[in-house]
Amino acid sequence: MKHDKVMNVAKKRGFLWSSFEIYAGVAGFYDYGPLGAILKNSIIQKWREYYVIREGFYEIESPTVMPEEALKASGHVDHFTDPMTECKECLEVYRADHIIEEVISKDVEGLTNEELTEIIRDEEIGCPKCGNRLSRVWNYNLMFQTLIGAKGKKTGYMRPETAQGIFIPFKRLLRFYRGKLPFGVVQIGKAYRNEISPRQGVIRLREFTQSEAEIFVDPKDKTYEKFSEIKDKILKLYPSEVQMAEKDPIEISAGDAISKGIVSSEILIYQLYLASKFLREIGIPDEVIRFRQHLPTEMAHYAIDCWDVEVYTERYGWVEIIGIADRTDFDLKSHTEHSNEDLRVFIEYDEPKEIKKLAVKPNMAKFGPSFKGDAPKIIKELENIEAEDVKSVIENEGVFTLQVEDNTFELLSEHVDFEEVEETVRGEKIFPHVIEPSYGIDRIVFSVLLHTFTEDKENEREYFKLPNDIAPVEASVFPLVNKDGLSEIAIKIRNDLRENGFIAEFDASGTIGRRYARADEIGVPYAITVDHESLENNTVTIRNRDDLSQKRVPISDISQILDDLLKYKIEFEDI
Amino acid sequence: MKHDKVMNVAKKRGFLWSSFEIYAGVAGFYDYGPLGAILKNSIIQKWREYYVIREGFYEIESPTVMPEEALKASGHVDHFTDPMTECKECLEVYRADHIIEEVISKDVEGLTNEELTEIIRDEEIGCPKCGNRLSRVWNYNLMFQTLIGAKGKKTGYMRPETAQGIFIPFKRLLRFYRGKLPFGVVQIGKAYRNEISPRQGVIRLREFTQSEAEIFVDPKDKTYEKFSEIKDKILKLYPSEVQMAEKDPIEISAGDAISKGIVSSEILIYQLYLASKFLREIGIPDEVIRFRQHLPTEMAHYAIDCWDVEVYTERYGWVEIIGIADRTDFDLKSHTEHSNEDLRVFIEYDEPKEIKKLAVKPNMAKFGPSFKGDAPKIIKELENIEAEDVKSVIENEGVFTLQVEDNTFELLSEHVDFEEVEETVRGEKIFPHVIEPSYGIDRIVFSVLLHTFTEDKENEREYFKLPNDIAPVEASVFPLVNKDGLSEIAIKIRNDLRENGFIAEFDASGTIGRRYARADEIGVPYAITVDHESLENNTVTIRNRDDLSQKRVPISDISQILDDLLKYKIEFEDI
Repeated sequence: MKHDKVMNVAKKRGFLWSSFEIYAGVAGFYDYGPLGAILKNSIIQKWREYYVIREGFYEIESPTVMPEEALKASGHVDHFTDPMTECKECLEVYRADHIIEEVISKDVEGLTNEELTEIIRDEEIGCPKCGNRLSRVWNYNLMFQTLIGAKGKKTGYMRPETAQGIFIPFKRLLRFYRGKLPFGVVQIGKAYRNEISPRQGVIRLREFTQSEAEIFVDPKDKTYEKFSEIKDKILKLYPSEVQMAEKDPIEISAGDAISKGIVSSEILIYQLYLASKFLREIGIPDEVIRFRQHLPTEMAHYAIDCWDVEVYTERYGWVEIIGIADRTDFDLKSHTEHSNEDLRVFIEYDEPKEIKKLAVKPNMAKFGPSFKGDAPKIIKELENIEAEDVKSVIENEGVFTLQVEDNTFELLSEHVDFEEVEETVRGEKIFPHVIEPSYGIDRIVFSVLLHTFTEDKENEREYFKLPNDIAPVEASVFPLVNKDGLSEIAIKIRNDLRENGFIAEFDASGTIGRRYARADEIGVPYAITVDHESLENNTVTIRNRDDLSQKRVPISDISQILDDLLKYKIEFEDI
Repeated sequence: MKHDKVMNVAKKRGFLWSSFEIYAGVAGFYDYGPLGAILKNSIIQKWREYYVIREGFYEIESPTVMPEEALKASGHVDHFTDPMTECKECLEVYRADHIIEEVISKDVEGLTNEELTEIIRDEEIGCPKCGNRLSRVWNYNLMFQTLIGAKGKKTGYMRPETAQGIFIPFKRLLRFYRGKLPFGVVQIGKAYRNEISPRQGVIRLREFTQSEAEIFVDPKDKTYEKFSEIKDKILKLYPSEVQMAEKDPIEISAGDAISKGIVSSEILIYQLYLASKFLREIGIPDEVIRFRQHLPTEMAHYAIDCWDVEVYTERYGWVEIIGIADRTDFDLKSHTEHSNEDLRVFIEYDEPKEIKKLAVKPNMAKFGPSFKGDAPKIIKELENIEAEDVKSVIENEGVFTLQVEDNTFELLSEHVDFEEVEETVRGEKIFPHVIEPSYGIDRIVFSVLLHTFTEDKENEREYFKLPNDIAPVEASVFPLVNKDGLSEIAIKIRNDLRENGFIAEFDASGTIGRRYARADEIGVPYAITVDHESLENNTVTIRNRDDLSQKRVPISDISQILDDLLKYKIEFEDI
């Protein structure tokens, strides 16, 4: 199986290791080894080029430990759960939905715990380990819980997503962007999910890296300037209706997907396109990518439209690696309610509006004598109350009671007059909607390894055909033989490349063929060899990993040539 | 106070915000705003250039959640503690050492809990809040604790340092480096410390970012190749003996510090030098840096030599921002003991050694008849036992008892002969020593803001004089006036710069003077202004933040000029 080959090379050469191996390991945790960490960082760096630099969405960094209040507001304390069941005999625990899907191949997405319990009972699904009876299904919260502070009184959690760290300082972000929509903010960092029984390698981690962008827009305007640049691009979409009709994904232009109402907004489909471009550039081909719309049963209740960018994997089938959702105003509204901070945005109208409004005016002939020194305070308080409300209460109940500081006052019909006034309104306060592309970086790294792994039978080699700009080692430098001073020259070239910012390696061990093979295996795009001709004319050969062709170049030009090649500014054949 | 000015600008302009403000905040947590996050990332990127690319220490990434066994081995479960005391009346908790230092200005570093308790009692130190009696002092563990997995049975902690994540996969790292010392491995990431009562802003965070390098060396050889390049460099050292004599730090060359035995090894002092170079390059001047050696009372028991790189701060005095330590073999030895995995390295001798050794030989005339069919097994087992031990036990006790599988056998003097044999030994297994530079990135970011903040009275401005290569916004683009199509040209320049990978901003709000001031304040090194001459000849002015001088350049050259300026390849006056 190709999967196993990839994971073996990844382990052997230092891309990915199970964590804590010497302590028997802990499921759901992976180490990025020396090559894996560079690969991951390069992918993240490219993501920044896309989102932070070119889209202009500034990045922020907020803590991974969060207080309970914030996650209560976001809904995670109550709803970030998986359905769990336990064996009554051996006490092993399972995800109820997964166990049902495995045993009777039934899709149970969206069912309640009661329905799942019923299926387990009716289908007589037992413990996969000991065969005994499984318990009723209950909700298990997936957050890692901890206590903040020495008094141990403040419950905290490891954040379940980076997004919340953007919503919480929204007011400060809005001020940074000078109060104007639309704007985007990104966060890249760790998120946590204490999985019940993670058994899918890097696909289901308890600690993972997310890159999320939150794009805040006026709910009335989800058009996007750059949409015009991509409206003819073809995407492989798998709309929910097509899934339900059990048909195949469709190929459609971005423009048609919008005009036919398949994707809900220009800004959302632009994100789908951007994701496909990003994945292509890091080596995941279009053929293994599709955009699957959430079914009504799986979509979060607050979302308008959600699409998963899925990559095909040999072992796990189609796997979500990016989620792109219109989260509406759910989060900002919810944080406003829980924090009592107004997270709305003032949207100025194109033209100020003249509106007619009821106003309440004190009838001073009665008002003054009744309230005396308290009158000014009461008048001030009345300004904060809708005149309509005062009027209807007095009409219905005869008296309007109002509280000013610690005193209660009773307003009767005689105290006030109502009149219609004209008012100029410059705009209104609204909750922005949020469009969110959310990238699962670990799954993306895994997909890159899987889909760049190349079995080149003709040349008897297997290697990661990584794009130049994300290959962990950028150049290997070899002496043809380990004598006559060739190694010294090669080491100097390696050192000079390092000084110029390249990850370059020197290797003099084994035959030159073995060294090429070792470099190919980990995807080094260019190998530089110092031979006897180098002693005569200060040139070396540079070999292209993909077609094995070689060119002879002056040693003094190596840095510039390598830089141009790695950034795809020149083609190898044009050196 | 300059400190307050810096923190005000940092908050107002989006560098640093207290976290969770809308939920009343949680002490010890900070958000990096849009400008702070770029600044932090740029500093980390420069750190990578130093350590990963130029020193050649590969980076890895291991989980922030760690199982208890691993942190038991590292000593953190038992010893990562602070002395705590509680008010018996109001139940407020305090760090016992801090409260004593604050109230009676006494240095209590290294004292036991009993001694601290005694001081509190003798000096009648009461609760700072309510004045009542404080409890006896006990150890409070500073790790955030959690539970891994659904059964809630596995205790985990948020890691207290990134270093442990490097020691645990040491065997795999050694294999990656083909079994040869010395080699270095780095990790950059979050670490956690659940402080009792953090009250020093970004100086004492509960969640912080570390960049640590672990350099594994042969304990017998702590020389360093690059030491020769730096031996004449002058460093401001504050050795422990000088501190104890209450004298001032000394200025001394690296070479002299080694020959006089002030710093314990070439590799360690090279790290001190590298740290000073790094800090200077990111804008922290030499005058506010010193290297303070740990006093015998404060150094970890397993360390040979530790130096803090300290930066002077107006508010907190000298603050440790980097720690550089020789951790010896403590960690690898301890993980070997706890995990039963051998984390030693085989060191080949320059020449194989012939050594004389005692060997035990069965005397088959007696051995065979006594042990019959068990004889081969017993002979095999004897090979694993030192002959010296067998000999001395038989000589002293008359019988050597040995266990093979489930049986016990008794060896008498008559069963064995001892003879001296010669053996060729190619090398030996040893535990490497570890030299560790550990950078506290958040304190470094704070120090950079503090020490680049410039009060330019002559030009009536205050600004962060950030080095070009870490300034968050690299260029601001302005139309001189917001009409005649100047804005459109400025926007196009901004967009082109973004496409070329620069963080560039467009600003058309307010007078040109206000816009320059706004850009200066956040340290934008270059401001580009489009004026009416731009319409005629496609040129713009570019203004240097530091001396306010301006040059006129063609629009088509901006990207190249900016790239050269930001990388310090050209001087502004040479444009």
